[in-house]
Amino acid sequence: MGVPVPDDFAADEAELPPVGEGQFLVRNLYLSVDPAQRGWAADGTNYASPVPLGSVMRALAVGVIEESRDPDYPAGTHIYGWLGWQEYAVATAADVLTRWAEPRLPLSAYAGILGINGLTAYLAFHGLGRPLAGETVLVSTAAGSVGSLVGQLARAAGCRTIGLTGSDDKVALCRERFGYDAAINYRSGDLAGALQAAAPDGFDIFFDSAGGAILDTGLRQMRPAGRIVQCGTASVPAWSPPPEGLRNEREVLTRRLIWSGFVIFDHAAKFGETMIALADLVESGALTFDEDIRSGIEAAPQALADLYAGANRGKTLIALGDGA
Amino acid sequence: MGVPVPDDFAADEAELPPVGEGQFLVRNLYLSVDPAQRGWAADGTNYASPVPLGSVMRALAVGVIEESRDPDYPAGTHIYGWLGWQEYAVATAADVLTRWAEPRLPLSAYAGILGINGLTAYLAFHGLGRPLAGETVLVSTAAGSVGSLVGQLARAAGCRTIGLTGSDDKVALCRERFGYDAAINYRSGDLAGALQAAAPDGFDIFFDSAGGAILDTGLRQMRPAGRIVQCGTASVPAWSPPPEGLRNEREVLTRRLIWSGFVIFDHAAKFGETMIALADLVESGALTFDEDIRSGIEAAPQALADLYAGANRGKTLIALGDGA
Repeated sequence: MGVPVPDDFAADEAELPPVGEGQFLVRNLYLSVDPAQRGWAADGTNYASPVPLGSVMRALAVGVIEESRDPDYPAGTHIYGWLGWQEYAVATAADVLTRWAEPRLPLSAYAGILGINGLTAYLAFHGLGRPLAGETVLVSTAAGSVGSLVGQLARAAGCRTIGLTGSDDKVALCRERFGYDAAINYRSGDLAGALQAAAPDGFDIFFDSAGGAILDTGLRQMRPAGRIVQCGTASVPAWSPPPEGLRNEREVLTRRLIWSGFVIFDHAAKFGETMIALADLVESGALTFDEDIRSGIEAAPQALADLYAGANRGKTLIALGDGA
Repeated sequence: MGVPVPDDFAADEAELPPVGEGQFLVRNLYLSVDPAQRGWAADGTNYASPVPLGSVMRALAVGVIEESRDPDYPAGTHIYGWLGWQEYAVATAADVLTRWAEPRLPLSAYAGILGINGLTAYLAFHGLGRPLAGETVLVSTAAGSVGSLVGQLARAAGCRTIGLTGSDDKVALCRERFGYDAAINYRSGDLAGALQAAAPDGFDIFFDSAGGAILDTGLRQMRPAGRIVQCGTASVPAWSPPPEGLRNEREVLTRRLIWSGFVIFDHAAKFGETMIALADLVESGALTFDEDIRSGIEAAPQALADLYAGANRGKTLIALGDGA
């Protein structure tokens, strides 16, 4: 399974389908561009079923309901959910992840810091990482749309934070904008040595969305009873044929690690309260975030390709129409 | 680091040292022979510091105090702890893991089912495995001194149990003596297929003391939110140079696994209550166990070699003197 490229996508026009009983018509305002879409678009075992060829690309989006045959979702309601890479969606309540009456932040934030990225960062870090003040936290993809929030959440929890990222520019971003105590360009050589210099006593929590050699290196510097939160495997380009690497079970054993996998859609029951907690943190100034907003649906495939190339800065969104 | 062989050991005679303030002289009755002794005897990073060449082999044992200068441990007290492969030990309270007034079971049991094996099985399975009735449990080294107890504890907890072991004889032992619902000889070919046939819906808990290919195969048949309890890595002959294997982080992620390492000495505060819980289970008939008791300290090195060769049956002990 490779990385999707723009030529894998086509822009099609279609008549709006009729709105059936229990459905509503949504005008999409912000389309979300997410690393996990690679998995959604690929054939093979994953935690979501693949998108059939020729159908609308599965995607999250913020939209506003224009016409409704579900009394719980009247016209004018803003929602965030499975609306697809399209300008209009016919959806049902099952497609909705969050909704809100009066927006506390600009609408784009509901697809980013208050959307799946913020919800993932908060629920994975607090739920599986279980941070204690004074602990040391390593974050891979530290400047990314989830990682940059984890770094800030860790700092807000009283932890020391070390970020890994893939360029010197992003190292600067991590330190200056996201408040990491130290940041390391994992491409610049001796990663094990750099980690040891940044945290001589090792890490209590490793929030890893990279996998591969980055995971193996960080794992070998975990403190006893450390928690590894596996939230992605972005550094491993393909899983077929099955890639090999260092055996890690002896590290799990001797360091008494707790290594857990996090998939956000298991935690839907907590989205509402978590969205409020995140909005509070943004309003208090504890969380800053970047958005990379591009215009027009035709920009979406290139935006996804840029994401895999590491050319994004913060949460990537596609604004449709006037975006409001 | 290789497996210790009898030639690595020597039997030496020495004068009994004087018993200092706070110390006591213990006559050893049963020496314990444990897989972890390989780690204790080896140089290199481990969770216990290595035994210096030329000193007494670190070992657990049951003994009786013959002379004491610690009022909390009067002569006649039976103890289980770090008494070494020797006939007499001078020890302190810090060397003691458990003690008991009136034995409820034969003294050998205090070095086996009520000793580190039973304590490990109980605390690791219940503490990290968190079994629910109706779940399916996979145990590697299923006929071993820890695994055979885990299988029975799982059954007592209302779980379906599948055992992995290394010979057809032990498969029979698993089914007939330890009550596994199914048992598989992992040497007999298609392990993945055999696991799938035994548990088509996968495993909720994998109690693994094997590591290596056995771990990789079981891990790929875990159910969502499954727990892997890493309690050993007996199937991997050496860790230097670092061995490679299948990358497992994507499985941890997509299956939302919780993979934890268990080291018994972290849990000393629970030994007393757990010893009582285990004795209750033995007396109720829920737990059966085998002992492989050999005579005389000179039998210890071969007994350890047999353990690594898989030639043991149940808990290996060395009886000294009349063993009473």
